[in-house]
Formats: sequence, structure tokens, C-alpha cells
Amino acid sequence: MNIDGQAWRTIGLEPGGRSVWVIDQTKLPHQFQTLTLSTCAEAAEAIRTMVVRGAPLIGVTGAYGLMLALQVDPADAALAAAFDQLNATRPTAVNLRWALERVRDRVRPLPPEQRAAAAREEAGLIAEEDVAMCAAIGDHGLEIFQRLAAARPKERQGMPFQVLTHCNAGWLATVDWGTALAPIYKAHRAGLNIHVWVDETRPRNQGASLTAYELGREGVPHTVIVDNAGGHLMQHGEVDAVIVGTDRTTRRGDVCNKIGTYLKALAAYDNGVPFYVALPASTIDWSLDDGVAEIPIEARSAEEVTHIQGRVVEGAAAGSLVPVQLTPDGSEGFNPAFDVTPARLVTALITDRGVAEASEDGLRGLYGPS
Amino acid sequence: MNIDGQAWRTIGLEPGGRSVWVIDQTKLPHQFQTLTLSTCAEAAEAIRTMVVRGAPLIGVTGAYGLMLALQVDPADAALAAAFDQLNATRPTAVNLRWALERVRDRVRPLPPEQRAAAAREEAGLIAEEDVAMCAAIGDHGLEIFQRLAAARPKERQGMPFQVLTHCNAGWLATVDWGTALAPIYKAHRAGLNIHVWVDETRPRNQGASLTAYELGREGVPHTVIVDNAGGHLMQHGEVDAVIVGTDRTTRRGDVCNKIGTYLKALAAYDNGVPFYVALPASTIDWSLDDGVAEIPIEARSAEEVTHIQGRVVEGAAAGSLVPVQLTPDGSEGFNPAFDVTPARLVTALITDRGVAEASEDGLRGLYGPS
Repeated sequence: MNIDGQAWRTIGLEPGGRSVWVIDQTKLPHQFQTLTLSTCAEAAEAIRTMVVRGAPLIGVTGAYGLMLALQVDPADAALAAAFDQLNATRPTAVNLRWALERVRDRVRPLPPEQRAAAAREEAGLIAEEDVAMCAAIGDHGLEIFQRLAAARPKERQGMPFQVLTHCNAGWLATVDWGTALAPIYKAHRAGLNIHVWVDETRPRNQGASLTAYELGREGVPHTVIVDNAGGHLMQHGEVDAVIVGTDRTTRRGDVCNKIGTYLKALAAYDNGVPFYVALPASTIDWSLDDGVAEIPIEARSAEEVTHIQGRVVEGAAAGSLVPVQLTPDGSEGFNPAFDVTPARLVTALITDRGVAEASEDGLRGLYGPS
Repeated sequence: MNIDGQAWRTIGLEPGGRSVWVIDQTKLPHQFQTLTLSTCAEAAEAIRTMVVRGAPLIGVTGAYGLMLALQVDPADAALAAAFDQLNATRPTAVNLRWALERVRDRVRPLPPEQRAAAAREEAGLIAEEDVAMCAAIGDHGLEIFQRLAAARPKERQGMPFQVLTHCNAGWLATVDWGTALAPIYKAHRAGLNIHVWVDETRPRNQGASLTAYELGREGVPHTVIVDNAGGHLMQHGEVDAVIVGTDRTTRRGDVCNKIGTYLKALAAYDNGVPFYVALPASTIDWSLDDGVAEIPIEARSAEEVTHIQGRVVEGAAAGSLVPVQLTPDGSEGFNPAFDVTPARLVTALITDRGVAEASEDGLRGLYGPS
């Protein structure tokens, strides 16, 4: 997608193909910088510290991390160690393990001297497939938005079609297009008069920083709100649809996404607002049924709750990025990073293969029997 | 309640009785400072800028504001002007108008030279009645907490009784005790093993700053969470009860409280967690029925969304309070300050006169026929 009129992706090979560049998302929206990852340890660190984040982008970064490891040591033991190192960085997203397994299974049958090149090719394929899947999600979501916009009462036809989104499931979370934001970009480019309510998404503020940044650079009208505001907006008819991404989806359609998604789904349900989840097949975990009971939820550092980073606006330090403390000394924080939205609250799943009911029948209809 | 072992209130007369001290709540939790209000304009400014906040404390501050005005000019025109100046500061809370009307109606029949003294007395009465009402709310809520704690399954009996609260309806929002926090303080002092989940409460973070500060000073175990986390905790049995305050309550029991309250009520309902609202009679607006349709919601500055204040933790400016920008340049914010929780989601109203169903019958049963 565009930054200052120039098309970007979130990750790519450096010239020569032996290292990888990524956008340092911890500096956004205040500073745009790229970073080079030259070792598997650097790739793991980039995932762990959320230099890269978003389930699809984490998967691609992990795949390239295996390439970086195999360039140094292509033996089985080194491959296994790199796999474990990368896989341990984030416990909730299922894409990471999926991408790592795909690269591992591709290279393991090969003689060691061919493994790094094969990993490079497989990681590249994962990235290209992700772009194609996101574009397809965008096309399927666009149809829904166009249908909903046209079905609004006559007095609302001239108003913007209002979409609320939580966290960042945009192109910064993937390689390009995004998942939940792909239909928004497609709709904007297709000329639909669209406006996006952007949930701030505490504690890491991926909405206020990344989603607002993405939408602003692409020219999509949007307004940032605190996570508390969405229910009120829905009560007052200010939201035509909610769309979010997912880090893991169970076979019956329960959706594990950024903490707070469940609260927006409840509000959408209570107000008759359709609630969509956009996903590529790689987030489906066919081994799980009941998401609330079965999905392990990552508890991140309490410091993400008690402190926040922002750009100093005045004084000698103006423009610099600093962390500030929000809570009193002595008050602890607790920081679960995801929650699970039960399938009963999900209007439909928007996938790369089309739109499905949030149920095992719905998903099997698109992805085939087990 | 206690700060460093010393009992405090939020507002009082300075020696001599011609000016008023308040705690500057914009500096909490990082700095404890009191401010002197010597004019009606200073009182209005203190309400507008949220040096004082919380419906009951706003009411008492407004009442003292009229006293400050009458000390300068006790004529009818000055009284009317001061009433309007104070009443315009915050549009949602009903206590403010109630307290202003009470003082105005008390002083208007009097000769001008007696008005300031009468306003001083009436404001003092409002403050004392607020303390008594909050203490009574605390006693009624304590009974509920003790009953719920005892009714837990045997395997949870040894665990803390877990209460989630949103925003600050504590003693800092009133004169003493608080409304929603009064039962918590009473329970803690009565020896109940209680733990409080404190919603951060964006955008102004009254939970992370004021509620956490209050609970910490009084020694009540608590943990700060982002507003997004409460639904997840309820899904996993980590919340035994939710209790919040209210800025305005309609006659059928709809509750207007800090933005985001509605989302917590939905989650409590979805998980079978009891949801209580604590209120003094002064928040009941008998003229309103349907809160969502009828209560005007204050939209505050977008800068409260796009920026946040915190304490710098490192470098030359460490310890100072600075605002930092969270959003990209060019992204707008929208900041509705309250939302309405429909009565159907409220388990019970805890009032100074006892516990009532959230319905017109319930409220009339305590407060008499119209």
C-alpha cells in the first residue's frame, strides 16, 4: 500500500538475498524506519519485541528467520534449534508455527547445501501467497460493504459507510493489503464513501498508531476513538459494520484476536450491527473447537499497561519518543494480549476463498472435509 | 479515606471559611497537591478542567462556587450569572444542576447580606449529606459482597473476592467513601479478602490514576488492566462482581456513566457476572425514561484521545509530567465522555436507601411516588 504515494510492503529481501528488511513498527506512527535482519536471532528478537507483528507478517518473518539460520548452519540440529527459537517468540498466533513447519518440511528432505536457497524460495512463496490471499479477502469484503451500503435506508445513502475496526489487521500486519483492512482499501479505491472508526487498542495502541497511520497514508477518512467508545457509537447508529482480523480461529468459528475484540462483538450483537472477521486459511486451527476453553492466551509484560510510549509535544525534548508512567508506584498491572469471541457473535467469516458462516460447516464448505 | 495513614476529604473550607481547598486531581497519581478556589470563576474552571471531577464532588464544588460568587456580589443578577457559569461547565452530570438549584433556592428568599453565609451552610450540608449517603451505599454494598463471597463454590472460598470497577467512583469523586468504591472500602475494613480489577478508563485514565491511587493509599489489593481486558477475565471466572458509579440514572434505571461502562455491562451479562451500579439519590433524573435516546452525551476535546499525560521515567526530565502524542499527525479523534447502560443489563442499583431493581418500580419503592 502507499506511503507518500509510493507503494510499500512490510518485508522483503535485501539486495543479494542474504538478509531481510522490515519496517520497524515500534517507531510508528511517529518515525518511519526500516531495519535489516541478518541472523535468526535478530528475526526472533524482531518478532518478540513487536518490531514486526500481525499473525501473517510474523509467519513470513519466521520463515525468513529459518533461511537466515540455514545460511549459517544448514544441519538438522541447527534447523531444529532455529525452529524452536522462532516458535517460542509468540505463543498465540498459529500462523507462525504453520509457516515454520512449511519451511522445515520443505528443506528437511534436501541435502544441507540446498537448504538455505529452498528456505528463501519457500519464504518468498509464503509472502506472495499472503498478498494474493489478502487481495482476495479484500474483494470478498468489498462485495459485502457495497451490498450493506446500498441496503441502508434512503436518508443514510448520502452519508459515509461507517466501519469500526479494532487493533491493526492492515497491511502492516501482513505483507500487503491486510486482512480486515483489505476490504476497506478495496472499497476506498472503488469509490465507496467510507469512514473508519479506529479503536485505539490499548495497551499497545496498534489502532491509534498503525491503523491510523496506514489509513492516513492511503487517504482513507478515519477517526481514532478510545476502546471504550464503540458501544456508544453503535447504540447511536454510527457504525454500519465491524471488521476485525484473527490470530487463531477454531474449527467451529471461535475467533481469537486482540484483547477487547470480544467486547466489540457483544456490542455489535446487542445493536444489530454486523460483525465480520477477515482471515486467511493459515489462521484456522482445525485441532481446536471451543476457543475460550482451549486457546492459550499470552500474558505480556505489565509494563505495557502501566507505561505508554508517545511523542513529546513541547519543550526541549519535543519530537522524541519517550515512555511515560500512567499508574501510581506500587500498583501492579495484568496484561492478557488476546481474547476469544465466540462464533455465535460473528456474522460471517471473510476468507480468501469467500464468505462463510462462523461454524464448522461454514469453514468446511470452503476448505474441504477434515 | 486514608493517604499515608491520614484521613482526607476531597474538598473543604479554608480557615476563615471564605475560600475552598480541593485536591488537584489532574496531578494524581504522580503528585499530591491541593489548590485554593477563591472565586466563582476559579470554581467553574476547576470543574471544567477536571481539577475536581465525579458527579457528587462536582455538585459540592458548584455549591461552594455560588458561595464564592455571593461573597463578591449577593444581588439576584450576580446569583443568576454565577448559576449559569457553573452550570455550563459539564453538561451530563445531573448532580451539578441539582446542587446549584438547592443553594439558589435556599438563598434567593433571603436579604442579600445573608446570602453568602446561607450558601456556605447549604454547601456544607450537601457535603455532609454526601458523606452519609456514600457510607450508607457502602453498608448496603458490603452486605451484597459478603453474601456473594459466601455463596461461591467451596473451591473458590479461599480465593480473593474479585470485583471489577470502571473509572473512578471513589472518594475522590465524592467528598469521602465514594459510591462504587464505598462497598469495597467497607468490605476491606470488615476483613473480606477482596481484590479489585481496575479498568484503566481511557481516555482520561481515571481508573489507572485515581482509583489505583485511592486503593493503594488505603491498602486494598488491586491490579490495573486496560479497558479491553475485562471481558476476557469474566469469560475465565476471574470476576465475581462488577460495580460502577453513575452520573445520571433515568427513572427506569438506565445508567449514564463513563464511556465504556456499557461494554462491561454486556460482558457481565454474557457471563452471568452480577453488575451493580452504586448511586446517591441526587443522580436520579426522574424526568427521563430512555437513557440512550434522551441523555445528552458530552463530547470532550479530541486531544484527550490523541494525547496522554504521564510521568517521564528516564533521562533529564525524569519525574516530570508531560503530555505525549499517541496518534499520527493528521488523524482526528472523537471523544464521547459517557455512554448509557440499559437497565436490562443492571443486576441491581445500590443506593443510600437500600438495594433496588433497576426499574421505575424499584426506584419508586425506595424514593416514593412521583
